[in-house]
Amino acid sequence: MPSDLDPIFKPKSIAVIGVSRNPNKIGSILFKYLTESGLPLYPINPHLEEFMGYKAYPSVLEVPEEIDLAIISVPAKAVPQVLEDCVKKGVKGVVIISSGFGETGPEGKKLEEKLKEIIKKGKTRVLGPNTLGIYIPSRKIDGIFTLRERSPRPPAGMFAYISQSGAAGVAFMDYAAHYGIGISAFVGLGNKIDVTEAELMEYFAEDEETKAIALYLESIKDGKRFLEVAKRVTKKKPVVVLKGGRTKRGAVAAALHTGSLAGSDAVIEGAFKQAGIIRAYDEEEIIDFTKVLAYSKPMFGPNVAIVTSGGGYGVIATDYIESTPEKKGVGLKMAELTEETKQKLREILVPYASVKNPIDMTADVTDEQYDKTLEIVNEDPNVDGILCLALFQTPFVSEKLVDIVEKWCKHGKKPMVVVSIGGTYTQKMIKEMEQRHVPIYPSIWRGAKALRVLYDRGRYLKKVGAEGE
Amino acid sequence: MPSDLDPIFKPKSIAVIGVSRNPNKIGSILFKYLTESGLPLYPINPHLEEFMGYKAYPSVLEVPEEIDLAIISVPAKAVPQVLEDCVKKGVKGVVIISSGFGETGPEGKKLEEKLKEIIKKGKTRVLGPNTLGIYIPSRKIDGIFTLRERSPRPPAGMFAYISQSGAAGVAFMDYAAHYGIGISAFVGLGNKIDVTEAELMEYFAEDEETKAIALYLESIKDGKRFLEVAKRVTKKKPVVVLKGGRTKRGAVAAALHTGSLAGSDAVIEGAFKQAGIIRAYDEEEIIDFTKVLAYSKPMFGPNVAIVTSGGGYGVIATDYIESTPEKKGVGLKMAELTEETKQKLREILVPYASVKNPIDMTADVTDEQYDKTLEIVNEDPNVDGILCLALFQTPFVSEKLVDIVEKWCKHGKKPMVVVSIGGTYTQKMIKEMEQRHVPIYPSIWRGAKALRVLYDRGRYLKKVGAEGE
Repeated sequence: MPSDLDPIFKPKSIAVIGVSRNPNKIGSILFKYLTESGLPLYPINPHLEEFMGYKAYPSVLEVPEEIDLAIISVPAKAVPQVLEDCVKKGVKGVVIISSGFGETGPEGKKLEEKLKEIIKKGKTRVLGPNTLGIYIPSRKIDGIFTLRERSPRPPAGMFAYISQSGAAGVAFMDYAAHYGIGISAFVGLGNKIDVTEAELMEYFAEDEETKAIALYLESIKDGKRFLEVAKRVTKKKPVVVLKGGRTKRGAVAAALHTGSLAGSDAVIEGAFKQAGIIRAYDEEEIIDFTKVLAYSKPMFGPNVAIVTSGGGYGVIATDYIESTPEKKGVGLKMAELTEETKQKLREILVPYASVKNPIDMTADVTDEQYDKTLEIVNEDPNVDGILCLALFQTPFVSEKLVDIVEKWCKHGKKPMVVVSIGGTYTQKMIKEMEQRHVPIYPSIWRGAKALRVLYDRGRYLKKVGAEGE
Repeated sequence: MPSDLDPIFKPKSIAVIGVSRNPNKIGSILFKYLTESGLPLYPINPHLEEFMGYKAYPSVLEVPEEIDLAIISVPAKAVPQVLEDCVKKGVKGVVIISSGFGETGPEGKKLEEKLKEIIKKGKTRVLGPNTLGIYIPSRKIDGIFTLRERSPRPPAGMFAYISQSGAAGVAFMDYAAHYGIGISAFVGLGNKIDVTEAELMEYFAEDEETKAIALYLESIKDGKRFLEVAKRVTKKKPVVVLKGGRTKRGAVAAALHTGSLAGSDAVIEGAFKQAGIIRAYDEEEIIDFTKVLAYSKPMFGPNVAIVTSGGGYGVIATDYIESTPEKKGVGLKMAELTEETKQKLREILVPYASVKNPIDMTADVTDEQYDKTLEIVNEDPNVDGILCLALFQTPFVSEKLVDIVEKWCKHGKKPMVVVSIGGTYTQKMIKEMEQRHVPIYPSIWRGAKALRVLYDRGRYLKKVGAEGE
């Protein structure tokens, strides 16, 4: 079903309003990156005839062809006029990068109201103002204004990340790029004068490349509508929301930062749960949770098998699985392995291994034992999910362990989360696993929380009688 | 005051029992690493006359000189005899690397009892068996048997790490080496037939290079003695303990793994608190907490100032500071900045910055504004500690920010913790800060927890009327 947001995320042509002779200006940087898309581009600047080999126009009104998307990067005061032009021209989508609006005080707020008036005159859909931009790696559409040298972009992947915070958005992409965590889209929400988080959630619910949606919000525009949409969307795809301002002081800080008031936390907590939204509490959880939901099937029971080569780590993991959230845990259960499972494990592991959950294969573990153990555990009917500690320091384990955990994460009967702890070599293996869409975590705590999120997802789907996608 | 453990950690000569013609055997690897210490070394092997240029002896009894430390790496069954020789020779300290004792079952347990009998006959102090070994980077004593290619060693630094878990010990060193986190000593506890965690804690409390002590325990040998010692030690130096097995299932797993029973968690929680022990719950917290306690002064009040260039991150940090531990927070307070502070901040920051705590300097922040802001906040009498978000993605911030946060961490009036979030460039800056002993964390949550630990330490010192070191 075509959406009126398609011209923003799947444009067939793009105008950049505010390119400049100075290559360091935001408009010029944007234009340069957008040339990689291979789309027809229209640089807009009244003083230029040509820009980077493309014919330039003084205004979108002078462009003879249809324009799907216009990206605006001119001083705030000039935005109303160029937006007016876009509406007149019938440009379908606009992204306003320019800042200096509601976020700066009453003056800017007034200017923002002016933009809203202009939008009413036509059908143009507007993202922003004050947004980082958009980035769709699979289409090579890089409409983010920060320099790549400072803020690298992540590769193409399986979840959409929608951020109201600019700084957090840049840091997210930087982090994701470093680890090779891919995304289907990045969207900077900005001041939300037109396109809202609810619409974006709905839009990406229909996007085939997107398997899960992350929303980093500092305010919620229309709470009722947002929850209604979420309720629909979460039956299909997992939605993770990070909503800053859950304490009084935090809410005040959020209000100062975004100019809009945040709601009471207790209300939000309950409403999120009812709408099937998975809640994240910080910049790390939002990635950790969305990732595992995009990559893995849900977990339909609470019983976890822990597979480890370090006994001590097995103990820490067990403590986290079995403790309630109030007591620093995730409130799942340790699976009681069947006698058959234990017998089979005894046959393949060293005699001093522990075949009682947590399964401790010991430091003498081999790649093959990892493989066989995961095979056996996947067959155990008492197991609902697996936490696998893939440790690369032991002598008989090789890079093949990456293939093994990838295989069981993707093709095993049970959902599985992987934890690898260590330094330079381990970091390399972690990046490799990230690129292969293995839900991998560098600490036991983060891995345990990811399993819990899979369980929450499974429980929600069961409750509402949905299957997800 | 000399200690009878000095020969183990400050040996003047070392015998390695179990070197071999095969360079891949543990004894040979150990010997090779130990040559870097520049100490007199005695390779022991009845079949060798010479080893790596050192005169070899069939037994320690044949060595004409005094031996401070003997490291034993022979098959379990051969250990009683060589230990007997060590005792007879009057070797002062012994580290038994060999495994195959209590950790393997009843047979091994019997062998272990034999070792205890032998020790009783003399004054030789024994670490192990089944230990990873010892590593004192400042003395270039690397008595760890794992290959450096697989498990790199951290540099010299400010805290001692004592680990009962081998796998966790190796992973810790690997992680610390990767980030450049230095240690004063690493000690593998092993099966604790003689030297215990309590003694080691007491020993490193007297060690000048050690500013804090981390203990990763799977069991506690003599609880009463341990707590008595801890009570004494924590008045001088901070002690962080990670004790696996806090849930029933975790305790069973710990018992299976170490062969010794763990105590009830409620009892341990209370006892630790009373003894001034800071408790860590996982492999990440034990490093995070020990590090900040080694590098930073304690925090003597709960009031935190947050300094950030990303408004959204300021909100998340505020939520974590203000929420209680039951509600996903650390239970500190946001400081009320004085009017003077706010006025001074207004003078140096951009007009759209927020001078209300959290202080949001905005993405236009410069190195100099970071510096000035930290200077101003350090002067505010309402502030007890600082959480500084040093973000490297913004355009006007440079590598100099590392110097700036280092300066204020080390010379500011208030304790300060730094958080940097991001990818490749940020990781580089994080490593640089780690090497300079800045308490740096890659996530807001970990930074907030570190501040809380400084506050717990401050509160404890006040309560017991001690000053710490």
